[in-house]
Amino acid sequence: MDYKKATGSVAAPAGFKASGVHCGIRHNRTKKDLALIAADVICDAAALYTQNKVKGAPLIVTKNHLQDGHAQAVICNSGNANTCNADGEDIANAMCGAVGKALGIAPDNVIVASTGVIGQPLPLEPITNAIPALALDLSVAGGEDAVEAIMTTDTRKKEIAVKFTLDGCECTIGGIAKGSGMINPNMATMLCFITTDASISSDMLHEALTDCVKSTFNMVSVDGDTSTNDMVSIMASGKAGNARITEKGENLTEFESALSIVMTHLAREVARDGEGATKLVECRTYGAADIAAARAVAKSVVSSSLVKAAMFGADANWGREMCAIGYADADVDVTKIDVAFESAGGEIIVCKNGVGIDFSEEDARNVLVRDEVKIKIGLNSGTAAASAFGCDLTYDYVKINGDYRT
Amino acid sequence: MDYKKATGSVAAPAGFKASGVHCGIRHNRTKKDLALIAADVICDAAALYTQNKVKGAPLIVTKNHLQDGHAQAVICNSGNANTCNADGEDIANAMCGAVGKALGIAPDNVIVASTGVIGQPLPLEPITNAIPALALDLSVAGGEDAVEAIMTTDTRKKEIAVKFTLDGCECTIGGIAKGSGMINPNMATMLCFITTDASISSDMLHEALTDCVKSTFNMVSVDGDTSTNDMVSIMASGKAGNARITEKGENLTEFESALSIVMTHLAREVARDGEGATKLVECRTYGAADIAAARAVAKSVVSSSLVKAAMFGADANWGREMCAIGYADADVDVTKIDVAFESAGGEIIVCKNGVGIDFSEEDARNVLVRDEVKIKIGLNSGTAAASAFGCDLTYDYVKINGDYRT
Repeated sequence: MDYKKATGSVAAPAGFKASGVHCGIRHNRTKKDLALIAADVICDAAALYTQNKVKGAPLIVTKNHLQDGHAQAVICNSGNANTCNADGEDIANAMCGAVGKALGIAPDNVIVASTGVIGQPLPLEPITNAIPALALDLSVAGGEDAVEAIMTTDTRKKEIAVKFTLDGCECTIGGIAKGSGMINPNMATMLCFITTDASISSDMLHEALTDCVKSTFNMVSVDGDTSTNDMVSIMASGKAGNARITEKGENLTEFESALSIVMTHLAREVARDGEGATKLVECRTYGAADIAAARAVAKSVVSSSLVKAAMFGADANWGREMCAIGYADADVDVTKIDVAFESAGGEIIVCKNGVGIDFSEEDARNVLVRDEVKIKIGLNSGTAAASAFGCDLTYDYVKINGDYRT
Repeated sequence: MDYKKATGSVAAPAGFKASGVHCGIRHNRTKKDLALIAADVICDAAALYTQNKVKGAPLIVTKNHLQDGHAQAVICNSGNANTCNADGEDIANAMCGAVGKALGIAPDNVIVASTGVIGQPLPLEPITNAIPALALDLSVAGGEDAVEAIMTTDTRKKEIAVKFTLDGCECTIGGIAKGSGMINPNMATMLCFITTDASISSDMLHEALTDCVKSTFNMVSVDGDTSTNDMVSIMASGKAGNARITEKGENLTEFESALSIVMTHLAREVARDGEGATKLVECRTYGAADIAAARAVAKSVVSSSLVKAAMFGADANWGREMCAIGYADADVDVTKIDVAFESAGGEIIVCKNGVGIDFSEEDARNVLVRDEVKIKIGLNSGTAAASAFGCDLTYDYVKINGDYRT
């Protein structure tokens, strides 16, 4: 599809503004910890939530609020997950109430999210005290403050906006995400908020989100720990003026293509900025019997602690890939597997038909030392392909997670 | 059951001898790399193999040899996994042939195993050259050499022998294992060889092994990477003189109890000596609806990278346990979960009914700094219980695996 990158993120689509402040949940006063995204109008909206049975209270409240397919704002704090707290839902509801009051909108049109330490009571006062100022600060430029406010130990902002044409109208999709790195990064909490000015029903938003997440966020692994607070939400203001998308068809496909660009970018950025990571590791499978096998093998390889540690060491120890392929939940013919490494340093083939081939260790090292490495796995059993996104396992991962709270 | 620890390991049961030498697979001349275990008589035998679809050539050969339920010797090298090599099965067969010739036994009564780097050709000559001397060296004391020869980056020997009474006869079971730490530890290759002088059919050995492995080795996780070369084998010489066990019943139950003691000890030792580990972490679940749920939750908790890193840091970050419980493949009622930590430093309860409770961080730290820590998870939904065995995630894990080959 034709699309172009635009400046900004969630406030780039028509009808959206954003802001972010330090309210006091986090001790570091220079770090913003409360983000607000708001729309001029009631939006069609949808969200997907963690599969973890232990769910953050904000997710339960948000799910309830999105039952009617509508939302007008997102409020999100970092520094505390508001999970496993006795009063969690009360606090999340009160956050929505305060936003509703400040913006003059219905509290049940507010999406609420939290990210940080589990099991520590979330103080309401700093949040409600800050919301009036947060509402006053709302602006198109405020997307920069919002993306900063949802970051925890993330080392870089994860944001994108793209423009594309739908039904003859220029549309924009913008998104921000936080990745695996928090004050309490045990959650690997993945939060993503997406906005668009396209006109599209909440059912179709849900459809598009569900499709896109399979090949983007669900293909990311930093440490295998599925968070209690993961959430991806999308709000559509309809201000682009396209004919409202209410069913599957060409327009939904176009919208999904643009959404996929946004979500793929954010997924890659989340993987690249995994805790302690020094590089983005992408596993590309091809020639798989079906898409499920392609995804299972790719995800298994980027999730392997041993593959990740070898990537840190730039060690072409391809037996680790073979091992991870072999325990993936997929039927593969071991005697047909090809393995290669590729980066800006070149490409090197290390295994053909399940058997090692001679290669130069020096050349391999030159491929693997780069900050983006692709592991290519040929399964030679069909035509399906998939990519999974991960990072290396480093001393810093252990350092960050060995004692995060002190 | 009544049992007592005995000295020695695989050569402790009547009818077995063992030996170990440095043959040259490994570069370090002071490290033994070839082990032999041999019986005076043809034994009933059984084995279990890795579930990885990429299987080491020795496993394929051994499985073939054990089809008739008989074996008389085990040959095992360390330093090379003999996996993903074009000539792997030929080499493994040749190893069995050389043992057969040296001992005057049928080559298809030999169990063969290898552990080390994947995808590097295994030279046959050093092995066949060493086998005659290995055969001459066989002795009851040689169990010490055999356990040393199967070690790779293991920092301690894993061996045990127990005596118990079966049908009025004193029986012995002995075992050795190697854990997750090798020259090429990407395999986390778990090998275990068990011998007994009890008289028991290969079918019943298989039955007992299958039962015991579920609560022992299958409950160990060091890094989640299921090896291509895992194998547990057992040989029974029948020299204890008990009535041959050929069906389920009280005697099989007694035998299984003793076998379980042997395998639990070795599983714990494998976990304690996980790559880079500074401590043994046991997760004990209780009050589960069924044994499958109890095991799934316990395994999920000890496998979590974030739980493991927190254990390294002696950080009572119990939200990580909640998170890992929540993504375990088990139905749990989140509002009924209790979490506590226990060690020689005492016990501390951190979560009741899914909600955090106040505790002293200092007391918690005193519990968690010990070299054996138990994580106790109450599910309050039934009567089933299980234990899983793991270790902490440390800088040394990254160091060992970041570049093992150079």
